[in-house]
Amino acid sequence: MHGLETLRTYFNQALDQEQFLKVPEGLYEPIEYTLDLGGKRLRPALCLAACELFSGTISNALNAAIGLELFHNFTLLHDDIMDESPIRRGKPTVYKKWDSSRAILSGDTMFAKAYEYIGKVDKEKLPEVHQLFTQTAIEVCEGQQFDMEFEDRPAVAKDEYLEMIRLKTAVLLAASLKIGAIIGKASEEDAQRIYRFGENLGMAFQLKDDLLDAYADQVKFGKKTGNDIVTNKKTYLIITALEKANEQDKARLSELYSPSAKIEKDEKVSEVLAIFDKLQIKSITEAAIMNYQRKAIEELEAINMSGSRKGTLLAITDYLNKREV
Amino acid sequence: MHGLETLRTYFNQALDQEQFLKVPEGLYEPIEYTLDLGGKRLRPALCLAACELFSGTISNALNAAIGLELFHNFTLLHDDIMDESPIRRGKPTVYKKWDSSRAILSGDTMFAKAYEYIGKVDKEKLPEVHQLFTQTAIEVCEGQQFDMEFEDRPAVAKDEYLEMIRLKTAVLLAASLKIGAIIGKASEEDAQRIYRFGENLGMAFQLKDDLLDAYADQVKFGKKTGNDIVTNKKTYLIITALEKANEQDKARLSELYSPSAKIEKDEKVSEVLAIFDKLQIKSITEAAIMNYQRKAIEELEAINMSGSRKGTLLAITDYLNKREV
Repeated sequence: MHGLETLRTYFNQALDQEQFLKVPEGLYEPIEYTLDLGGKRLRPALCLAACELFSGTISNALNAAIGLELFHNFTLLHDDIMDESPIRRGKPTVYKKWDSSRAILSGDTMFAKAYEYIGKVDKEKLPEVHQLFTQTAIEVCEGQQFDMEFEDRPAVAKDEYLEMIRLKTAVLLAASLKIGAIIGKASEEDAQRIYRFGENLGMAFQLKDDLLDAYADQVKFGKKTGNDIVTNKKTYLIITALEKANEQDKARLSELYSPSAKIEKDEKVSEVLAIFDKLQIKSITEAAIMNYQRKAIEELEAINMSGSRKGTLLAITDYLNKREV
Repeated sequence: MHGLETLRTYFNQALDQEQFLKVPEGLYEPIEYTLDLGGKRLRPALCLAACELFSGTISNALNAAIGLELFHNFTLLHDDIMDESPIRRGKPTVYKKWDSSRAILSGDTMFAKAYEYIGKVDKEKLPEVHQLFTQTAIEVCEGQQFDMEFEDRPAVAKDEYLEMIRLKTAVLLAASLKIGAIIGKASEEDAQRIYRFGENLGMAFQLKDDLLDAYADQVKFGKKTGNDIVTNKKTYLIITALEKANEQDKARLSELYSPSAKIEKDEKVSEVLAIFDKLQIKSITEAAIMNYQRKAIEELEAINMSGSRKGTLLAITDYLNKREV
């Protein structure tokens, strides 16, 4: 079994062999630019790992892995327009480097190209893969819509937040794994288990993101922590804090998070973190992450095969939990 | 065989039975709104007609027809953002009624929903239909990119223009027909013929659009003619005129079409039309339309079956040529 780094290398080699730049170049340049920005390649790696788990080989899943990475990058490209994010991975986002029209249209093309690669799976597997990929794409859009709606709402319940991140993040990790499993000829039961493994892994992944934004080691994190607090972003941390706080702290948090709050950024972050600390938000979030991780591992363990074959997926789970970026 | 009106009715009945509005409503409302605006339903009607031509029944093609109409409406939704069009079919466009983010995201969802319906075709037909639909989606994006690029260019050659409208308009009509034919179990040769029929029909359709914008009976047309001239849009008419004009008329047309031209709208339209008349642009365009139509009918005639079965597609060809809107 190959480790995460090796899977990434195989994937990047396969991706490099594909030719994305063609006429009209104005349409394809932003696609190549986006793919060249790199990233964790987590979704394709999971797809390849799941295929290898069930079939012993990754090669049949390479095209689907490219399709999944194209889809993920398409969502980033369009999300950056909607969220007005000027920078991604240290470089200008497509709508900033070119313009919104270019970002909309090259994103649409990237979505269609994702289907082109998904369409290369074995004929007998295509109906199931097509259905799962499509359902996932719709769910990811629903997640982004909830995310945008939540930004305009004064309060969001924890269950709503968890459902939003399930849709926006977890289902794509889950589908990447299940598509790899289907291509690797897993039984329906095992494919469903690997899906639930990915869903729980995805929940843990997003909560870890929330946690890192507030509590990461700033040097290793590579950017300033506390950005979610500065931008009033709804995260697991603030939602939990508002749930647990006494009336006085709740009122103060609401005040600090109001768009009209007049307080210097660093001061706001310190004050919010002080309340988080009092309420033990860090350890509550860590416990929630551990809980999702435990559920993920239970699903993986229920798959009936030698434990040694599951090493890659266990290592990825461990890596995602221990990451500091 | 059913006529165009009957096919439209069947299609609209099938579409009405589908439930598009679900949670989050903010995402699905713009989709329902767009579908409720109506339209010619030309692509689904062509898909149903082709399926009936080869199999004697339309029912197997209804889901694919919905997928094609969803895709077409998704492209309109995103094009309206890029072209900053405030009105479509007499109502505010989605990005005007809601905002750009909503239009981008509900458009993306509509594209994914299109694939959901395409995914409902028979398992053994799915690989071919998936491939054709995806290739077509990519080509339509390429066509839109060329269209936008041409707007910023001083000159566009006729061949470039024809390739742009082939990509932006003709291939989707062609694919709608071919997908219907594949579902209707046409031979590969006949499916390819019906594709070329659609491609030529699509070229004639777009040139007819260009012609109507300048020469329609304004009362029947329902809106002011000459809009393409006012907005300096590259059309078959102006491209042909610039090709055929003497130096003096060419210079004057370029002057009138320059963004800095200082001339009242109606006056500009009259002066441009006067030059068009002198150069016989109307009859040249009509001849080009007839030529594409003739090629379309040749492809249809080459399909080896009783001519009486081809009545619907011949009638649609005739209707598109004679339309005044």
